[in-house]
Amino acid sequence: MPRYKLVVEYDGTAFAGWQRQAADRSVQQALEEAIARFANAPVRVHCAGRTDAGVHATHQVVHLDLARDWRTDTVRDAANAHLRPEPVAVVSAAVVEPGFDARHSALKRHYRYRILNRRSPPALARGRVWHVPWALDAGLMHDAAQRLLGRHDFSAFRAAECQANSPVRTLDRLDVARDGDEVVVLAAARSFLHHQVRGMVGTLMLAGGGRLTPEGVRAVLDSRDRGRCGPLAPAAGLTLVGVDYP
Amino acid sequence: MPRYKLVVEYDGTAFAGWQRQAADRSVQQALEEAIARFANAPVRVHCAGRTDAGVHATHQVVHLDLARDWRTDTVRDAANAHLRPEPVAVVSAAVVEPGFDARHSALKRHYRYRILNRRSPPALARGRVWHVPWALDAGLMHDAAQRLLGRHDFSAFRAAECQANSPVRTLDRLDVARDGDEVVVLAAARSFLHHQVRGMVGTLMLAGGGRLTPEGVRAVLDSRDRGRCGPLAPAAGLTLVGVDYP
Repeated sequence: MPRYKLVVEYDGTAFAGWQRQAADRSVQQALEEAIARFANAPVRVHCAGRTDAGVHATHQVVHLDLARDWRTDTVRDAANAHLRPEPVAVVSAAVVEPGFDARHSALKRHYRYRILNRRSPPALARGRVWHVPWALDAGLMHDAAQRLLGRHDFSAFRAAECQANSPVRTLDRLDVARDGDEVVVLAAARSFLHHQVRGMVGTLMLAGGGRLTPEGVRAVLDSRDRGRCGPLAPAAGLTLVGVDYP
Repeated sequence: MPRYKLVVEYDGTAFAGWQRQAADRSVQQALEEAIARFANAPVRVHCAGRTDAGVHATHQVVHLDLARDWRTDTVRDAANAHLRPEPVAVVSAAVVEPGFDARHSALKRHYRYRILNRRSPPALARGRVWHVPWALDAGLMHDAAQRLLGRHDFSAFRAAECQANSPVRTLDRLDVARDGDEVVVLAAARSFLHHQVRGMVGTLMLAGGGRLTPEGVRAVLDSRDRGRCGPLAPAAGLTLVGVDYP
């Protein structure tokens, strides 16, 4: 019963998120059905990061067990053939140790958040960005972001429905930089609370627009009060771009 | 009767191309209708480059005349309000001299062509790239591309329906570089023949896969024979990214 690790890319726009649901189509369901079709048996896939509805991935990682010893190229190509026309692609497949767990073995998750910061709405980047039409100062946002780094109680940026045992997380990276019309946020941590990245981005947006000082952003963190968090940045701007393993 | 210059972005996927057509929806029609709605009068827009069906633009340039002296911010914002929900956005608006002509005043057009060069099909970049699953050598493609620079008869890369008076064009730039899984081609010239960029990219693809030498690509140019051109690269990979004016 070999274990496989897959790197998966998807456009989250049309999905109700990663996780299987009773009613709506999920990425997990699309992937499990495609693999089950060529493997001729039901299959369960386990992911590194359960993305919300509308959130994208260039580098989601999953593990799964197959009854037969399939060649990794065959797993990748057969999955892609059966995924069509869903906007989900298996980018690579590898055989891993039986102890490998996409979720628990992960050392770090990397997310990217894109803000389109111009008067005009997005045409080409629609569904991929948060449109903020007033001017944002990316330098101020980066300054504020640095005050969130390290090990903290991130309750202020945590969704009410978050299932984590503890609100304490260690934020390793939160970089904000302008790239033309876009303000791009790169976040990395061993793990994040539910809605943590989107809550932090919404709060940084307030700092970028001058409605909160960098010290004020830190005060939101210290308050551990969700009521003081900025607006939840929309799912469309968020992409899971990497997961590190030992 | 002030003349305005607009920079326009669009997702070409759902359109039958730039130019107005009897049957199918065009970008020109969407833009003219949106402007006519707020200007309360029929309007004609003239563009720098008539893109084909499926071709995108981050920086199409148009000019138009309006009966009233509208503020440029108002023109941009009102056009965008009336364009909704079309995937077309007016990025900027300016007042220009009455002699300005988006097409005839242009000194140079810049196009970008994106090839997704990996086994797996695109999920996030669907409709934005040409998927070539076998390995391409971007260095070889760039080498071949340099042999097309300068003033030549580009008949080999010209569509049968091309309406230009002469097949002679001066190609100023044709750079090919790898960016992760993508091979990106940047082309610049005062003007291009119909299908010239897509024909050149299709021919460079053959060089990248080792099916044509750089000298062979030059021989295609010298033959002036469309029958020797590589496959026409799909419209989805092409984007008009800039137009230069004096």
